[in-house]
Amino acid sequence: MPVQDLEYPKQPFSTVRRYDSRATYSLEQIHQIINTSLLVNVSFTVPDTPFPQTLPMIGQMGSFDRPSADTGDVLELYLHGYVSSRIMNLSRKKDDAEAPPDAAAAEPVGLPVTVAASHVDGLVLSLTPFSHSYNYRSATLFGYATPVTDAAEKLWALELITNSVARDRWRNTRVPPTGAEMQSTSVLKVKIAAGSGKIRSGFPSDEKADAGDEALLGRVWTGVVPVHTTLGGPTPSPYNRVDPVPGYLADYVKGTNKYAEETALEQMTKPMGSKAKTGN
Amino acid sequence: MPVQDLEYPKQPFSTVRRYDSRATYSLEQIHQIINTSLLVNVSFTVPDTPFPQTLPMIGQMGSFDRPSADTGDVLELYLHGYVSSRIMNLSRKKDDAEAPPDAAAAEPVGLPVTVAASHVDGLVLSLTPFSHSYNYRSATLFGYATPVTDAAEKLWALELITNSVARDRWRNTRVPPTGAEMQSTSVLKVKIAAGSGKIRSGFPSDEKADAGDEALLGRVWTGVVPVHTTLGGPTPSPYNRVDPVPGYLADYVKGTNKYAEETALEQMTKPMGSKAKTGN
Repeated sequence: MPVQDLEYPKQPFSTVRRYDSRATYSLEQIHQIINTSLLVNVSFTVPDTPFPQTLPMIGQMGSFDRPSADTGDVLELYLHGYVSSRIMNLSRKKDDAEAPPDAAAAEPVGLPVTVAASHVDGLVLSLTPFSHSYNYRSATLFGYATPVTDAAEKLWALELITNSVARDRWRNTRVPPTGAEMQSTSVLKVKIAAGSGKIRSGFPSDEKADAGDEALLGRVWTGVVPVHTTLGGPTPSPYNRVDPVPGYLADYVKGTNKYAEETALEQMTKPMGSKAKTGN
Repeated sequence: MPVQDLEYPKQPFSTVRRYDSRATYSLEQIHQIINTSLLVNVSFTVPDTPFPQTLPMIGQMGSFDRPSADTGDVLELYLHGYVSSRIMNLSRKKDDAEAPPDAAAAEPVGLPVTVAASHVDGLVLSLTPFSHSYNYRSATLFGYATPVTDAAEKLWALELITNSVARDRWRNTRVPPTGAEMQSTSVLKVKIAAGSGKIRSGFPSDEKADAGDEALLGRVWTGVVPVHTTLGGPTPSPYNRVDPVPGYLADYVKGTNKYAEETALEQMTKPMGSKAKTGN
């Protein structure tokens, strides 16, 4: 844990403008939302179309130089996935052509990407549709993506990503990967330029006129339906021969479900606008 | 249900290039993935930054002109959310300035957006990290967003969106919204230009060398951990007076959980590359 709670700098593109009382710039909170998401959405612009490209990828925050770094430290985002080198190159060329030479030289290397992840923690049902909401925790990171080419860093990142899918899975499989496997697997590293998060917690809140309407209160149910992700029972493949399910996996399923359910309930009973649970 | 299974046209920006055996262009499948997602990620480019903006929003496919249209029909996407008019305007101006006058005139009206949604259906655990995967269903729509200004269409869209959060909720709340509520709520309508989806189902699959390694088979557990979203027990707000939980809500929670759990299990036992369940 860093000595103080670090925050991302507010950039024009990263500042939360709607409901800014729900905003957070805390590295700890933002990284925690990313790390507990099964998928993140990676968006970037591509030449010759006005539509950004968006790819779902598996992502995990980490530091290759300081592997023991905490969730709240300055970290990079490692993504398991592939962006064609054509797009990476075209994107750079476009920047170079448009920007004056000096600016291009000063600009960070890599494909500019926006990475988004969200957890829905509850359906917030109020007296009137207008006041309906979700309890949620969302995070967005802005940074520059480059393919990881260093063999040791790539191996380290693959272990980080694999263990994020199921804790301790890496050393319980056939490792290390072969040369061919390493070659045909792509890992992207995103150097983070800015980030922001948004969190809504608590019970519904209605306008005074509705909340004081006795007939309405007697007719409309209000409250929260908690929402969380559930891992079901591990189901063996047709060629599995290991029985029963190994302890590390059974424990992971149990622990993940407990954490997810508890988080949804905690977010429900937490006052609105207060900060989310960040510990694991 | 339309007479034939409609497909989105493959555009350069919408064609799936990696693992294209997992691709789908079926309106039915893509719309189903969007409609069962609690949130969609809406991305668009903004002036003066290389980073796309990505906003999580609640979205639902529908047709105001043909309200009885099926999931597999040509539909628009309605989004509950707000994009500043400054960005909408700047985006149009940028297009106008760059494109020749004729092209600008021919171009569709609205902010170009990319809308992405994903369901993770399972953790697919194989003998080696390289063959690990998720069972998932992901969808991307590309289209042009405009704010809904017609009062009747906006009211219809708000009902569609509210009932997607909890079936039948709209008429069980205080409706219709007041003039002030209508004014301060924004709905965007996206006219879809193209779309694609990607689906992975089934058990793990390993390379021959690993799958024939007796020692490895005896040591590494392989299979699928199903993943699905769970709605917890509806929890009354401090000012709720309706007890017990109304039937429509209790049924919705039960039905949604049953569908989510069954889908995860069905995707697990379905052969790889086969198409996802599309019925509700």
